[in-house]
Amino acid sequence: MTSHASPAYRRLSVEERKHQLLDAAQTLFAHRAPEDVSLDDVAEAAGVSRPLVYRYFPGGKQQLYEAALRSSADALEHCFAEPPDGPPTERLARVLDRYLAFVDGHDAGFAALLRGGSVAETSRTSAIVDEVRRAAAEQILFHLGVDRPGPRLGMMVRTWIAAVEAASLIWVDEGKRPTPGELRDWLVDHLVALLAATAASDPETAKVVARLLARETPAGPVGTLARNVIPVVSEAAHLL
Amino acid sequence: MTSHASPAYRRLSVEERKHQLLDAAQTLFAHRAPEDVSLDDVAEAAGVSRPLVYRYFPGGKQQLYEAALRSSADALEHCFAEPPDGPPTERLARVLDRYLAFVDGHDAGFAALLRGGSVAETSRTSAIVDEVRRAAAEQILFHLGVDRPGPRLGMMVRTWIAAVEAASLIWVDEGKRPTPGELRDWLVDHLVALLAATAASDPETAKVVARLLARETPAGPVGTLARNVIPVVSEAAHLL
Repeated sequence: MTSHASPAYRRLSVEERKHQLLDAAQTLFAHRAPEDVSLDDVAEAAGVSRPLVYRYFPGGKQQLYEAALRSSADALEHCFAEPPDGPPTERLARVLDRYLAFVDGHDAGFAALLRGGSVAETSRTSAIVDEVRRAAAEQILFHLGVDRPGPRLGMMVRTWIAAVEAASLIWVDEGKRPTPGELRDWLVDHLVALLAATAASDPETAKVVARLLARETPAGPVGTLARNVIPVVSEAAHLL
Repeated sequence: MTSHASPAYRRLSVEERKHQLLDAAQTLFAHRAPEDVSLDDVAEAAGVSRPLVYRYFPGGKQQLYEAALRSSADALEHCFAEPPDGPPTERLARVLDRYLAFVDGHDAGFAALLRGGSVAETSRTSAIVDEVRRAAAEQILFHLGVDRPGPRLGMMVRTWIAAVEAASLIWVDEGKRPTPGELRDWLVDHLVALLAATAASDPETAKVVARLLARETPAGPVGTLARNVIPVVSEAAHLL
């Protein structure tokens, strides 16, 4: 128990010690599936003994995992926040840049969490994931200028969020290709395309789209997509 | 143990009995979360004793759950099969009709499975879900006429499948509104929009889209979407 005698150990307050253990746990859970992290790993990474970890986290690994997840969820929700200024697709691109940086920094843990089937998954961890999804949906609706979306628009937003999660998971699985910038551009295009397709049959979405388009610029994502899609759509002339 | 003495009990072979128990389990797991199904429920639904269920399924509820899931996965994969004839979006619409009928018939069980966090979820159940996703992706690529998709097209297909799952889950959660027909049309529009947006920056997808469009008809989903999207897109004239 030599580490107990070290001055660094004595100096930490309860809160500082908890924070330090949580920090160590978070780093481990970010890059490994929960199955591949042991309490001994956490103790070793924090430079403390196993009993000490239990003193601060009596629920052991599961408690540490849930605390780390809670903290990751807060970080994610924080990175969704974006002021409602400028072209909407450029705001979205900034949020996606922060989101993809988060995914990049939590790759294996993020993948294990979303892939499911982990022993560390409980109704509590699912509730945290759902809370993050809800926060994402609320942010999107805020930028769309919609308070209580109708069923079609609400489903569209939540469906796109699921598509972003799936794309992030595939991105991690496939060695993080394409580049984060290319993935972000494609995810923006995806939402624009989905908005247009939904607006085609839903009047509420059509109104939202008209308002959004008025704030876009020719050099921005929508202008670029519109110009690039013209040759594709020209093949559909026989359908009009 | 009066049920043991009934003539109906004596007449069933081992295979028939297993089949009967599995049938009962499947019906229960379709409409309830696995947490809400007990072995007694299965025994009662099949009209047999609890020890008899254990004789055929020594792994108890978990074994029955996984067997029911296996059988559902086979049914789902079967409903993905569609001959490569006629306009591609009409083939897709037929597959989605069968898929949504399946979701409708397995609502609570389907939702519990995909929502995650269930105690019945293991690496084996996750592997079965992944297998169904892979089968769906293979079928789509078959109809797109692509054998080995490039990264962008591959990610697009898998992302759309995730979007369909999410939409189905929301659909079940929200009392199965809109109608299955409206949901199916929107999911087809979603794929068409996503194909167009991806084709705008990926040459492989552009080639696939050109080939698909040649097989579509003015009265079909792409023609309808194209006509309905014109007023939406006209708001983007300042971006071109």
